Amino acid sequence: MQKKALLRKLLQKQKVEGILITDLANVRYLTGFTGSSGFAVISKNHAMFVTDFRYQEQVRYEIKGWSIKIEHTERSKEIKNICNVCNIKKLGFEDHNITYGFYRKLLMNKVTLKPLANIVESLRIVKSPEELSYINTSIKRAEAAFRKLLPFIKTGITERKLALKLEELLKLEGCKKLPFEVIVASGFRSALPHAKPTDKRLEKGDLVVFDWGSEFEGYFSDMTRTILIKSDNISRQKELYYKVLEAQKRAIESVRPGIKASEIDAAARDYIAQEGYDEFFGHGTGHGVGLAVHEKPVVSWRSKDTIEENMIFTVEPGIYLPGFGGVRIEDMVAVRKKGAEVLTSLPKKLKIIEV
Amino acid sequence: MQKKALLRKLLQKQKVEGILITDLANVRYLTGFTGSSGFAVISKNHAMFVTDFRYQEQVRYEIKGWSIKIEHTERSKEIKNICNVCNIKKLGFEDHNITYGFYRKLLMNKVTLKPLANIVESLRIVKSPEELSYINTSIKRAEAAFRKLLPFIKTGITERKLALKLEELLKLEGCKKLPFEVIVASGFRSALPHAKPTDKRLEKGDLVVFDWGSEFEGYFSDMTRTILIKSDNISRQKELYYKVLEAQKRAIESVRPGIKASEIDAAARDYIAQEGYDEFFGHGTGHGVGLAVHEKPVVSWRSKDTIEENMIFTVEPGIYLPGFGGVRIEDMVAVRKKGAEVLTSLPKKLKIIEV
Repeated sequence: MQKKALLRKLLQKQKVEGILITDLANVRYLTGFTGSSGFAVISKNHAMFVTDFRYQEQVRYEIKGWSIKIEHTERSKEIKNICNVCNIKKLGFEDHNITYGFYRKLLMNKVTLKPLANIVESLRIVKSPEELSYINTSIKRAEAAFRKLLPFIKTGITERKLALKLEELLKLEGCKKLPFEVIVASGFRSALPHAKPTDKRLEKGDLVVFDWGSEFEGYFSDMTRTILIKSDNISRQKELYYKVLEAQKRAIESVRPGIKASEIDAAARDYIAQEGYDEFFGHGTGHGVGLAVHEKPVVSWRSKDTIEENMIFTVEPGIYLPGFGGVRIEDMVAVRKKGAEVLTSLPKKLKIIEV
Repeated sequence: MQKKALLRKLLQKQKVEGILITDLANVRYLTGFTGSSGFAVISKNHAMFVTDFRYQEQVRYEIKGWSIKIEHTERSKEIKNICNVCNIKKLGFEDHNITYGFYRKLLMNKVTLKPLANIVESLRIVKSPEELSYINTSIKRAEAAFRKLLPFIKTGITERKLALKLEELLKLEGCKKLPFEVIVASGFRSALPHAKPTDKRLEKGDLVVFDWGSEFEGYFSDMTRTILIKSDNISRQKELYYKVLEAQKRAIESVRPGIKASEIDAAARDYIAQEGYDEFFGHGTGHGVGLAVHEKPVVSWRSKDTIEENMIFTVEPGIYLPGFGGVRIEDMVAVRKKGAEVLTSLPKKLKIIEV
């Protein structure tokens, strides 16, 4: 079924006559708009897209099947006008995306506002074959860039230089927008799960965590590999690595349609706890990836999501020992009838750099 | 006066016992925190900073003078606990930053929530000598990168390659985070004020708009230059360029403490209108730059802001002729007693590329 038709069914279910879509990933999903400022309103009989002057040329070729309007006054007033034109008496809005300040500006005498959560997200959570192909291209770009980075990884180079090089390689692969700033964290800094690259140089014995992603047609990819710089005694680093890899393997093997996302998290977390490292794995096991790099489903102990076929998400357990170092291994998987299809193809045998 | 003391005075004025700061630029301004997830609460006797597990190592050296807490439950619950601990009965919050959904989660029986706007922003709008020096370094980095880009600008190269090269040069200058993706827009695409770089190649007769910025210690810079690729008849392009330059000159000359920001906008806009191009200048004339690349003051016809000494903002009029091309020229200025000090030093004589 068409996205608009699906959305209109959800409107009925939510008992609203229209919905205001302001989350830009949701706007892109519905309309194809790639700009940074615009919103959509859909009602039974109307599908309106509004942006500002800066995008008036661009939207002519980007957006089909929506009435396009260029806003000439405050956004809240434009929305009120649309409610009037479309005869909307009850308007749903995305309560995760509208600020409280904007909500107050939107208040109208004759229109009731209804906060809604996860309306478009509930469509986005399961991927179409077209979306899967975009994500696969996005993954291929990320992998190609990382393979070209490998010859640069050696002792003495700084985290920052490696991160910059990887960003350059990603963009040369065609990535228009990085999902997040590349993470390169070495030695004691690898124990910071979201460390920014610094001028620290790679040293012998360092675990080095690379976390990066790419983009294709707006769809992101996200992956992590941890490599090791050789030194005389690297047995603890190796041990840590293979514990994380085993945790990841268990999480991936647990994936199947119908399972709770929290059970996938538990598959990794229970193993890590059993090995004595439970307090050193503080983040969730994974997250959906699509037009946003963090989207539904949430794969953590707190998640209420249930896994369905054709969802795509990351599996990325880690162990972080303050002062010593950390390991994280992250793949993207698609959910098939019989289990997980691992989309990421970079090898997972521990890579030990000799120089 | 210390930032905390200033903020506490504002609390009294707003009749709240505490304020929740969630806007990350405001959090950084107050605490020094550079991560992507954290918030602060300040009351008469407490100054608390909360972040999640990922930043527990980093905040030890980044944040001084605040009680640091690592959150272990939902954020809304952490905030409720803090209200309890700090005995806050009325809590101000940043209504531009809290979503409606989160606001509903925050509702408490014994604590009143009060939406506040522009509390920390009202401190940030005027820059200290230290902030000015950071911004100046940020500008120098942006300029150095652009100078190194100049030899690459010639017919046949794509917008995307130029944008990528400029990003690389910015990062090599030390910029850790780009304020926005570099814009390179040539020929007919220069008529799109916020065009993304494409695979379009630079051609003879093209106006080419470069809009980019850099960063230092979290402080951004933002500038635009338009250059011209030589061809047989470039008289219209030149005419357009010098009209924009004259508009910019008039806006800059109008700057002085006490003037309304809308009057600066009018200085540029009235001239452009007088020359017959009023419908081709759709955006505002400028915006403040600091820890955010778009912050107060707003320099547009809609602005209510009044200019004060030591504000720093852009002056960036443009004329965009659909199908033909556009020109934008953007400098950053600091407000001095006698008028504007132009911080950007790149030349503004039209640069015509010969090859």
